[in-house]
Amino acid sequence: MKAIVVTSKEVGARIKEINDAENYGEVKIRALYNGVCGTDREIVNGRRIGITMPPGKQETVLGHEALGVVEEGNDYFKKGDLVMPVNRRPCNKDINCLAGRPDFCETGEFVETGIVGADGFMREFWLDSPRFLIKVPHELEDIAILAQPLADIEKSVEEILNVQRRLIWTCNDGTLDCRKVLILGTGPIGTLFSLVLKSYQFDVWFVNRRELNTEEQTVVDTAGLNFFNSSRGYDELISKVEGFDLIIDTTGAEAEILNPTFRMLKRNGVLGLFGFPHTGIVSMHANDVQNFVLNANVIVGLVNGQKPHYQQALLHLAAWKTIWPKITSSLITRTVRIEDPDSVLNVLSKKEPGEIKVRIEWK
Amino acid sequence: MKAIVVTSKEVGARIKEINDAENYGEVKIRALYNGVCGTDREIVNGRRIGITMPPGKQETVLGHEALGVVEEGNDYFKKGDLVMPVNRRPCNKDINCLAGRPDFCETGEFVETGIVGADGFMREFWLDSPRFLIKVPHELEDIAILAQPLADIEKSVEEILNVQRRLIWTCNDGTLDCRKVLILGTGPIGTLFSLVLKSYQFDVWFVNRRELNTEEQTVVDTAGLNFFNSSRGYDELISKVEGFDLIIDTTGAEAEILNPTFRMLKRNGVLGLFGFPHTGIVSMHANDVQNFVLNANVIVGLVNGQKPHYQQALLHLAAWKTIWPKITSSLITRTVRIEDPDSVLNVLSKKEPGEIKVRIEWK
Amino acid sequence: MKAIVVTSKEVGARIKEINDAENYGEVKIRALYNGVCGTDREIVNGRRIGITMPPGKQETVLGHEALGVVEEGNDYFKKGDLVMPVNRRPCNKDINCLAGRPDFCETGEFVETGIVGADGFMREFWLDSPRFLIKVPHELEDIAILAQPLADIEKSVEEILNVQRRLIWTCNDGTLDCRKVLILGTGPIGTLFSLVLKSYQFDVWFVNRRELNTEEQTVVDTAGLNFFNSSRGYDELISKVEGFDLIIDTTGAEAEILNPTFRMLKRNGVLGLFGFPHTGIVSMHANDVQNFVLNANVIVGLVNGQKPHYQQALLHLAAWKTIWPKITSSLITRTVRIEDPDSVLNVLSKKEPGEIKVRIEWK
Amino acid sequence: MKAIVVTSKEVGARIKEINDAENYGEVKIRALYNGVCGTDREIVNGRRIGITMPPGKQETVLGHEALGVVEEGNDYFKKGDLVMPVNRRPCNKDINCLAGRPDFCETGEFVETGIVGADGFMREFWLDSPRFLIKVPHELEDIAILAQPLADIEKSVEEILNVQRRLIWTCNDGTLDCRKVLILGTGPIGTLFSLVLKSYQFDVWFVNRRELNTEEQTVVDTAGLNFFNSSRGYDELISKVEGFDLIIDTTGAEAEILNPTFRMLKRNGVLGLFGFPHTGIVSMHANDVQNFVLNANVIVGLVNGQKPHYQQALLHLAAWKTIWPKITSSLITRTVRIEDPDSVLNVLSKKEPGEIKVRIEWK
Repeated sequence: MKAIVVTSKEVGARIKEINDAENYGEVKIRALYNGVCGTDREIVNGRRIGITMPPGKQETVLGHEALGVVEEGNDYFKKGDLVMPVNRRPCNKDINCLAGRPDFCETGEFVETGIVGADGFMREFWLDSPRFLIKVPHELEDIAILAQPLADIEKSVEEILNVQRRLIWTCNDGTLDCRKVLILGTGPIGTLFSLVLKSYQFDVWFVNRRELNTEEQTVVDTAGLNFFNSSRGYDELISKVEGFDLIIDTTGAEAEILNPTFRMLKRNGVLGLFGFPHTGIVSMHANDVQNFVLNANVIVGLVNGQKPHYQQALLHLAAWKTIWPKITSSLITRTVRIEDPDSVLNVLSKKEPGEIKVRIEWK
Repeated sequence: MKAIVVTSKEVGARIKEINDAENYGEVKIRALYNGVCGTDREIVNGRRIGITMPPGKQETVLGHEALGVVEEGNDYFKKGDLVMPVNRRPCNKDINCLAGRPDFCETGEFVETGIVGADGFMREFWLDSPRFLIKVPHELEDIAILAQPLADIEKSVEEILNVQRRLIWTCNDGTLDCRKVLILGTGPIGTLFSLVLKSYQFDVWFVNRRELNTEEQTVVDTAGLNFFNSSRGYDELISKVEGFDLIIDTTGAEAEILNPTFRMLKRNGVLGLFGFPHTGIVSMHANDVQNFVLNANVIVGLVNGQKPHYQQALLHLAAWKTIWPKITSSLITRTVRIEDPDSVLNVLSKKEPGEIKVRIEWK
Repeated sequence: MKAIVVTSKEVGARIKEINDAENYGEVKIRALYNGVCGTDREIVNGRRIGITMPPGKQETVLGHEALGVVEEGNDYFKKGDLVMPVNRRPCNKDINCLAGRPDFCETGEFVETGIVGADGFMREFWLDSPRFLIKVPHELEDIAILAQPLADIEKSVEEILNVQRRLIWTCNDGTLDCRKVLILGTGPIGTLFSLVLKSYQFDVWFVNRRELNTEEQTVVDTAGLNFFNSSRGYDELISKVEGFDLIIDTTGAEAEILNPTFRMLKRNGVLGLFGFPHTGIVSMHANDVQNFVLNANVIVGLVNGQKPHYQQALLHLAAWKTIWPKITSSLITRTVRIEDPDSVLNVLSKKEPGEIKVRIEWK
Repeated sequence: MKAIVVTSKEVGARIKEINDAENYGEVKIRALYNGVCGTDREIVNGRRIGITMPPGKQETVLGHEALGVVEEGNDYFKKGDLVMPVNRRPCNKDINCLAGRPDFCETGEFVETGIVGADGFMREFWLDSPRFLIKVPHELEDIAILAQPLADIEKSVEEILNVQRRLIWTCNDGTLDCRKVLILGTGPIGTLFSLVLKSYQFDVWFVNRRELNTEEQTVVDTAGLNFFNSSRGYDELISKVEGFDLIIDTTGAEAEILNPTFRMLKRNGVLGLFGFPHTGIVSMHANDVQNFVLNANVIVGLVNGQKPHYQQALLHLAAWKTIWPKITSSLITRTVRIEDPDSVLNVLSKKEPGEIKVRIEWK
C-alpha cells in the first residue's frame, strides 16, 4: 500500500509503496485524513533529536494524527464507523500505563506512533486495537482531525483542574467564570487553548506582540475572548486586570518569554508550560521565588492527551460546531490530496502563513 | 405585568396582572420561554406539601425553568444576551452555599424560585443577580429550556464520579467505556440521563416494563443505547450483562422497584436515587446488606443542579445538536403561547402522552 | 513446624505438625503473635459459608492477623525487624488490584490468607513477599496485633472522606470537628472506630442499648467521647443533637437496627455499613427514600483495609500509646500461649465477656 | 500584664507591662510557652520588610508560636485544657478564608498574629476564639510547641499529595513507600520535613554540603533516613538513586541551589519550595524547560499550615514520642524563662549553633 515514510539516514519524506508496516490489533482501518503538525515537520526536516524508527528498522511510516473508517471491525467498532487512533501507547509496566494513562508513564518506555519507535498512520490501511481507538460521529468528519492536537489541550486543562483541587478554586457561583487566564501565543495551539478554556467558562485573555489578523479577530469576537498586544510590555494589562489565575505558554519561543509571567500570577495561580522553548534561559530572581512561595503558586508541565481527552475534544468540537460555526469552519486551513504528492511533500516540510490545521486526504 | 400565579388558598394557576413580584438583582430580563415540569403541576394541583409562598405573601409567581433576554444589563450580561436563571438560591450561611453550591446546603434554608419561598419566572420581566444567571448562546435558543432539568442530571453524574474517586473507576484505556449503566425509566428524565451518561461514554442500558414507542426507539438507535424490556423480570438481562456498575432510578414509582437492583450491582457499583417513590417500602434483606458491604456498594441521593451544571448542560445540548439532531429536534414536544391561556393552564395541570418537555412562549 | 489448621470436612481447629503450607515470597518470618477474631471462630465452628481451602487442599492454616519477626530478609526488611502481613491478596487482573488495592477488587478473585483460598499465619514460620509486609516499630510490639482489625477501620474512614469530596465537608476552621458521628455498637469494632474517628477530630457519639461497663466508661472518658443509652429509643438523642453527619453500624445484629438511622442523618450525611447483619430486613419507606434523595444522603459498604491502612493504623496506635495509655493498655484483653493448646483451642471457639482482642503467643 | 513587644520605630524587643493588647474571642488563655523562630528574629532585628503593627498602633506584641492553658473557657475548651492558637487568621472575604483555609487566602488581607497586623502571644494572657484554638493532650505538653512550625510542613505534604492526584502516585502496594524524596537542608525545617515524610512512608534522602553532626546522625539512624553529602555535587547520588519523585528545598539559601534539582526530578516529579532564597537567580535553561514539560513536572510554593495541620502535627508528635523517643526528646534544644530577661532577649536576637527549637517559658 501507499505510505509516507521517513528514514533514519536521509532528511525528507517520501511517498512509496510499502508492505511490512507495523500493526497493533484486529480492527482494520482505511485512512481518510492525516493531520500535519510541527512534530511531523521536525522529523521530515531532520531536526528532531532521538531515534524514531520502530525496533530493528531504518524506515518508519510518518503520521500521528489520523481519521479513518473501519473496514473490518468487531461488535463495537463496526464496518463504516469513523475512528481515530491514540498516538502515544503505554509501556504497561507502571500503574499509570496499565490504567491507560501513558501521559503519566513512569518508565519512559511508551511508544508514539509516527514519532517514537512505532509506525504512524500516513498509509492507506492499518490494523489497530480497540483499546487505542475512539469512535467519531459522522457529523464531525469534516473537523474531527483537530481532536488529536485538541486532546493534548483537554488533558492540560484536566490536569490544571486536578492540581487546583489543593484549594477551592471555583467562584462564589460554583463555576470558574471569575478565573482569569492569560494565553501566550495566538497560533493554532493558543487558539485551541482559548476555545477550550472559554468552554470551561474561564475569562480568557489572548496575548501577542502584534495586532490580530482578521481570522484571529473573528475567533476573539465569536468566542467572547479578550486580546492584549504586549509589544510594549505588560504594564497596561496588569493595571487593568491585576493578575491572572492561570497563565499558559504555548509559544515555544525563547525561554525569556516566561520571565514577566511570575509577576502576573495571582495568589494560588498556576503557570502551565505547554510549548518547548528552544533557546534562552528562564530567570527567576530570589524575589520572584519568595513571591512564588508566599503566593502558593504552581508551575506545571503539560504533555500528551490520551483517549479520554480525545473524547472530550470531540465533545467540544461538536458543541463548537453549533455555537461557533464561524470558528470551526475556519480551523482546517488547507487540505491536500495524496494523489498530489508535490503538495503533500510541501506541507510536510514547511508551515504556511495563517495555518491552523493542514490535512492530507486519502479518499 | 402579566404573570402566572398560584395561591396558598386555592388549587389551580391563574394568569393575571401583578406589580409586586420579588426581584433578585440588577439585570432586567424579559421572559422568552418557561419550561413546565412535574413539580409545577404538583403545585398547581395542590399536591405539593409544604408552604411555597414568599415570606409574608399568600400568592407566588410560578415557574423555575426560564429562558429570557437581557433588557438592561451590565458589562458581562449585555442587552440582547440570552440568559437562564438558576432556580435554587443559597442561604449563604454554610460553606457550600457560600461556595455557590446550595445543592449541598446544610441548613435547608435555601429558597427555590417558584417552588419554595420565592417568586418564580412565569412573568413578563424580572430582575436578577449575575450570580444566578447563565449566558446562553443564541444558537441554542430553540432547546435551551432543557438545560434546567438537564442540570439536575449533570450534577448527579458529577456527584457519582466524585463518589467513585474512592477507587480507580476508569477502564484500562483511561475512559469510562467499560462501565455499564442501567437506567430505570424511559420517561423524560430517564431519556436525558441516558444521553448524558452516553456522552460520558458509559455503556447505557435503558429499561422499561413495556416495548419502546417509536420516539424512544429513535433515541436508542441514534445515541447507540441498549434497551431491555423488564416485564418478565431481570433474569435474562443479568445472564447477558452480569451486572451493572451504576444503576439509576428515575421512575418515582413504588419503592419496591428498587428491591431487585441490589442483586444487579457489580462490585464497587453505585445505586443512584433520582426519583421520589410516593408509596411502598424498599426491603433490603440481611443477605442483601451483607453483599452490599462485601461488594463495597454505594447508594446516593441525587438532587438539584447548580450553575456549573447548567453550563455543562448547555455544552451537551450544543454537542447533541451537532451529533444527534434527530434527538434534539424531538425533545421539545409542545409549545403553548401565553396569549392562549386555555392551553397554558391545560399544560400546567396535566402531562400529555409522549411528553418530554412542554414550554410556554412569551414572545 | 507447628500450625493451627482447619479442614473442609470437620468442625474445629487442630494444632499439629505440618510441612507443606503455602508461602508467598522470599522474606522468612517467625510468628510472634496471632490475633483471633470473629471470622476465625466462624471458620472453626463451621459457620462460615464458602470453601476456604487453598486450591487442591482439604486443610488450611488458620489465621489472618499476625505479627512476626524477620528471620531472613532483604535490604529493606532486615533480620530482626518486626513485620505484619496484609491478609487480602490481589488478583492482579483489574486495575485496583494492580494498584495494590484489592479492597476494590473487581473480579472477586482475590484470596484472603486463612480465610479464602490461601494458608494463614497461625504457624511457626512463613515466607512472604515484601509487597504484602508492613514494618512495625519495636516500640509497638505489645499492641501491634491490633493493626489488622484497625486497618479495616482506617480504610473505612478514608473511603468516607473520599466519598464526601462530593461537597465541602470540612468546617469553617478547616477541620472535621463540627461533624457529629454516631457509632452503633460498643464492642471491639465500635471502640476502635470511635478512637479512629476521634483522632480525625470528629465529635463522636457511642450508642448501646445498655449502660456502659467500667472498661467502656474508661474509653469514653479518656478519649472524650459521648455516650447514649438507646434502650428507650433515639428521641432524646435527636432532641439533643439534631442529627448526625455520619452513622456507622458495627453491630452485625438484626438488619432492623438500621431502620431508625435514616431519620437521624443530617443533610449530606453518610450511613456507613461495616457490620454484617445475619437476620432481618432493612425497611426504607417511600418517605425515607424521599428524604434520602432530598438530603443528598449516602449509604456505603465498608470492607477490608490494605497496606496503607495498616500503616495508618500503626501511626494511630503509636499516637494513642502517648495520649491515651489507659486505653491502649486495655485493648489486648487476653494472651494465650501456643504451648497451652487447651486455652488456644478455647479462645478459637468462643468469645469471652469483655473481650476486645485476644492473641496467641508463639515466642 | 507582662509582654514582649516590638515597635515600628526601633530595632529590638522589649519586655514591658502592657494593658491594651488585641484579643480575638471569649476563651481566656494563660501562656505556658512561646516558640521562637527565624521570623521573630527578623522582626526583632528590623530585617523584616513591611509594616507589622496592628491597625493604628506603633507597637505590637511579638510571638506566633504559643502553648497556653485555658483560664476561662466554654463547653468545649474547659478550664485547665491545654490549647494552641493558629497564627494566620482569615480575611473572611474569599471562599478559602471562609472555609478556614487562609493559607489559600486570595485577597492577601489575612492577618498573622505577631507578624502582620495583629498582636502576638508573647504575653501572660490573651482572649481567643474557639475557631482558632487547637486542644492539646497534656501528654504532649513538653513538645507541643513544635506543632506550629510542624503545621506548615503538614500542610505542605497535604498539598503535594493533592497536587499528585493528577495521576496515580501510590505504588503497587497502595502506599507511598516506593517514592523517593530529596530534602535540601538539614536544619530544623529539613529535619521536621524528613520526619513527616518518613511518617507518610516515603523513602527519604537528606542532603547537606557537609557531614552530619552527632544529633543529625541520631535522627537519620533512628528514623531510618538516608543521607548524602553534596559538597562534591550530585553525580554520585544520581548514579545511585536515578532520580527523585519529590524534592523539597528548605534552605532559604541562594536561589542557585535549585539549579541542579531540575535534572534530578523523575517523570511526574514535584519540586516543593518551602525556603525563601534571599539572593541569587534560579536559571532554567531551555533544555531544562523542555524536560520539565516532557516529564510532566511540577513546582509548587508551600506556605502556612492551618488548624487541620496543627491537629495532624500533634498526631505525629504523639506517635513519634512512642516510636522515636530519642528524636522527640532532642527537638527542644533550649528553654529560657521569662523571669530571665537577658536570656529571653538573647534568644530573640540570634540563633545558636545546633538549635532546633528554642522556647520561652512563662510558668
